[in-house]
Amino acid sequence: MSSDAFRERLTGYRSRIDEALLQIAKGAEPAYLYDPIRYVFSGRGKRLRPVLVFLTASGFGADEEETLPAALAVEILHNFSLVHDDIMDGDDLRHGKETVHNRWDNSTAILAGDGIFALAFDQLNRLNDTSVASMRLFTNATLRLCEGQALDKAFETDDEVSVNDYLEMVRLKTGTLLSLCCQLGAVVGEAGDEEVDAVAAFGELVGQAFQIQDDILEIYSDSEKMGKSLGSDIIAGKKTFLTCKAEKLDRSHWREFMQSLEGESLDERIPKIRDYFGKNGIVTDGEKLVKELSEDAISQLEPLPSDVQANLTPFVQYLMERKN
Amino acid sequence: MSSDAFRERLTGYRSRIDEALLQIAKGAEPAYLYDPIRYVFSGRGKRLRPVLVFLTASGFGADEEETLPAALAVEILHNFSLVHDDIMDGDDLRHGKETVHNRWDNSTAILAGDGIFALAFDQLNRLNDTSVASMRLFTNATLRLCEGQALDKAFETDDEVSVNDYLEMVRLKTGTLLSLCCQLGAVVGEAGDEEVDAVAAFGELVGQAFQIQDDILEIYSDSEKMGKSLGSDIIAGKKTFLTCKAEKLDRSHWREFMQSLEGESLDERIPKIRDYFGKNGIVTDGEKLVKELSEDAISQLEPLPSDVQANLTPFVQYLMERKN
Repeated sequence: MSSDAFRERLTGYRSRIDEALLQIAKGAEPAYLYDPIRYVFSGRGKRLRPVLVFLTASGFGADEEETLPAALAVEILHNFSLVHDDIMDGDDLRHGKETVHNRWDNSTAILAGDGIFALAFDQLNRLNDTSVASMRLFTNATLRLCEGQALDKAFETDDEVSVNDYLEMVRLKTGTLLSLCCQLGAVVGEAGDEEVDAVAAFGELVGQAFQIQDDILEIYSDSEKMGKSLGSDIIAGKKTFLTCKAEKLDRSHWREFMQSLEGESLDERIPKIRDYFGKNGIVTDGEKLVKELSEDAISQLEPLPSDVQANLTPFVQYLMERKN
Repeated sequence: MSSDAFRERLTGYRSRIDEALLQIAKGAEPAYLYDPIRYVFSGRGKRLRPVLVFLTASGFGADEEETLPAALAVEILHNFSLVHDDIMDGDDLRHGKETVHNRWDNSTAILAGDGIFALAFDQLNRLNDTSVASMRLFTNATLRLCEGQALDKAFETDDEVSVNDYLEMVRLKTGTLLSLCCQLGAVVGEAGDEEVDAVAAFGELVGQAFQIQDDILEIYSDSEKMGKSLGSDIIAGKKTFLTCKAEKLDRSHWREFMQSLEGESLDERIPKIRDYFGKNGIVTDGEKLVKELSEDAISQLEPLPSDVQANLTPFVQYLMERKN
């Protein structure tokens, strides 16, 4: 399939998800709960996770209709985690829109997140024969996500976070969800246990690659494309692959450098931070790791049916070419 | 069964739940997520909800072992909602212990609540043959709970909440969960659909009675027994059955009265509020409604097997005699 045809296919999946999300809480009351939920569901995400469910399920021969609840479930779970993470991180913008707690308040956002969480399970209940297996995978993934977020929060005040600690956090926080997408797609497509495990390994590696790439884009993209301020994570003291690597290379040098920027505006700091990462080979290291993880991910697909490979390999290429 | 023997049976169920809760997150990491979860699970609640699951399931012939995951699931769901509600309401004490957000912070409490939510589903996954039906009931109840909490929050700033609005909120917020306990118990005991519906109606009515009784105890009990300050809900502007009734009887008189108390300490206000409710027949109205709802609940049990009646009727009597 040509790269254009593949992108067109993703656009189709994305519209399907966008439309289905708009139907979910339509007309539901009370407004205190459902207005913010509808606001979240009308947001424009990249829908990468449900797309990955569709691609995997299709590779195993499932049709779009039976896959839809699983695809929706992961997108909704992802939205739940964003609403709550944004409160915890005090983020004001998400995909260029005000975050829920910023537009309403913390209480509204906590409750909206809880409702969204329940709606994710509601989708899973719609899977017929495969709902029990899916529910187990889903519940387990949800706990791993919470563990990843916990590490992320704990790392904010931890001075000794190694690159390996960071990669473990990313495995839990981002790897888990992409892995779940592949698992659910495979289960809907009635794949065998070994096949489910193979796509799970693929998804986890893709998730890690994706997050490190995100860390790079967070400082090297432009803010309009990212829908939030560049460098905001780094300035807020969040660990990223790049900061952990900088610490590893020369901790005191990195800390002195960061202290020297205090008081400067974001616009002044960004080019200096880029320069630091560039001169010290840190971006190159990040890009190299993204490439290795992606290749490792693709190699997990070798024992799988050719249709699965044909769907998932271009997905990795597509992710690697993204600019936001 | 004598009242003493019944109480002993409840104590047995309660210990079973207390012990099982302590095992759930034992040794789990990271501490940022699991320390507050263990703290919540080590709290001493009345465990009324899992007790109700055990009583219902036993009435339909299920044994304790197979019922345990369902009983744990509702207790865990209840704990999840308390952790998040306490953040939203800014409550500092719960059962005489510091609330999670008070002991740690909001972010920790949001995430702990999310993890607890996932752990509730994890228990449901352990039900074998009945997990699909249970999951549907559970997911649906979770959404209704969120709707009830949304009404509760929306009512705080709403000047026109009628007694009926209030009862609808209570039906969603408290009735739903007690109804779910009965439904899950019945499903584990392989009851028929009509039997499940009958115990669901029973549970919903018991839940409403329980909440109105709670509204009365909130002002008439003593604070040591309640594990929190008396009257704190009323002072915080929360609607209760008694305040909605006072508004209905004579809105301006009630508002003038409440304004006249401003600046006084809780200890000064409580006896005056009690006096107001007493003189205007408002407590009597509340007690009468609790009695009616309880009787109505018991009448729902008529078509059910005698073992179910023998288990659930004394449970209602037990609830009605409680002092906290």
